Amino acid sequence: MKTANFIAHGRTLKGELRADGLLYDAAGESHRPDDVQFLLPLRPGKVIALALNYADHVAELGFKAPEEPVMFLKPNTSLLPHGGTVIYPRGAQYMHYEVELGVVIGRDARRVKARDAEAYVGGYTIANDLVVRDYVSNYYRPPMRAKGWDTFGPLGPYLVSADEVPDPYNLGLRAYVNGELRQEGSTRDMILKAPELIEFMSRFMTLEAGDVILTGTPKGVSHVHPGDVMRMEIDGLGALENPVALEDESAEPLVAQEGERK
Amino acid sequence: MKTANFIAHGRTLKGELRADGLLYDAAGESHRPDDVQFLLPLRPGKVIALALNYADHVAELGFKAPEEPVMFLKPNTSLLPHGGTVIYPRGAQYMHYEVELGVVIGRDARRVKARDAEAYVGGYTIANDLVVRDYVSNYYRPPMRAKGWDTFGPLGPYLVSADEVPDPYNLGLRAYVNGELRQEGSTRDMILKAPELIEFMSRFMTLEAGDVILTGTPKGVSHVHPGDVMRMEIDGLGALENPVALEDESAEPLVAQEGERK
Repeated sequence: MKTANFIAHGRTLKGELRADGLLYDAAGESHRPDDVQFLLPLRPGKVIALALNYADHVAELGFKAPEEPVMFLKPNTSLLPHGGTVIYPRGAQYMHYEVELGVVIGRDARRVKARDAEAYVGGYTIANDLVVRDYVSNYYRPPMRAKGWDTFGPLGPYLVSADEVPDPYNLGLRAYVNGELRQEGSTRDMILKAPELIEFMSRFMTLEAGDVILTGTPKGVSHVHPGDVMRMEIDGLGALENPVALEDESAEPLVAQEGERK
Repeated sequence: MKTANFIAHGRTLKGELRADGLLYDAAGESHRPDDVQFLLPLRPGKVIALALNYADHVAELGFKAPEEPVMFLKPNTSLLPHGGTVIYPRGAQYMHYEVELGVVIGRDARRVKARDAEAYVGGYTIANDLVVRDYVSNYYRPPMRAKGWDTFGPLGPYLVSADEVPDPYNLGLRAYVNGELRQEGSTRDMILKAPELIEFMSRFMTLEAGDVILTGTPKGVSHVHPGDVMRMEIDGLGALENPVALEDESAEPLVAQEGERK
């Protein structure tokens, strides 16, 4: 099942995307996805993101694969629905998109072994883990202002239930900018897959139903600029599209500090 | 006003601590604080913690003061009420308490200047920002498993409204372990105070009502061990007490990795 939250005709609705390509709300009324305003498909308690979790991306950056998952939290306030506008900060020079498989926790997990973890996955969604590289002084644990800006976490459009994704580690991921294919990979190149990540994380913290794990990005990240439109696709999950706009003129440029820009 | 959430006689209640030292619930019934089970005084949307924000603590560690706030997020699942038991992870060697002033955001803040920030502070509380130093490979941005364990964020017992704290930057902070004074400082030694922190953070992300900023700890951190009882005090805010217990025997020790323990 593919579910979404959206606004249509001034009402906030929950809907299900059916095979005919239309969204059906609880009253059975249908809506064309292009005609509605998407909201976030869920409200995560926390968003845990992975760095360096695709072998080809690790190689692209010239790093060696980490010995354990490199994790950081994205603030929930950074989340943005499909169609929402991403802020390009004044003063930024290097802003990158990153297409990622979002794994949505289905029920509370604590000390769950990888072999049992599948039962804790509720579904999947598409994420774009935006970053301003100017502010990255430490790739392994980026500072909050590199990854935590309002709008730096597009997520959606749909929450796709796990039963609709029988083979989550054989999905193509693609990122387009203004229609041009820029990033292409497969979830089969993920170093640590959701079961191993759930085992590692739930060893010390509770993963709650609705939490989202952003599982890292394959190679092929590149710059985006104000005026660009990003489109993130994952096989079977749909397409997450967001335009980029320059921060308004009243904002003071937030430039990189000494020691950043690495 | 000092408010708390608690369980008494099997009921979950909200209450106000009055001058007579009793908690009054909405029905006007009184409860002795020692007789109730405290819950968290609020449910933050996000918890933003500061590293290296007291001059004496920076000196104690042999660092120089950072040029901008060094921030990280604590997962909400790490929060623990007054009286709750903190887990001492099997395999850990160096676990530290840290007494901190918790600043609770009162209304949504985005691009707020320091001079206007006071109006966005809803209140204050006490926090204990626990850490297993074994897992800290990078002091500036500790990995999630150093600071993010379930129970590593005691908070409370009360949410104290801002009007009851006329001079928040002249408060004594004290940490006791088993009744022995181990850490003592004053909020006047904070490098960046809430107004400057709110200006910096709200420059790129929305601080939502109920978010909590943990403003860093003064000098005097030291080890705690299973069986210890920690008591964090801040003038006018009360006392936050939590015992420490060894993780149960079924847990596999999670030991430090190569490159950690710095």
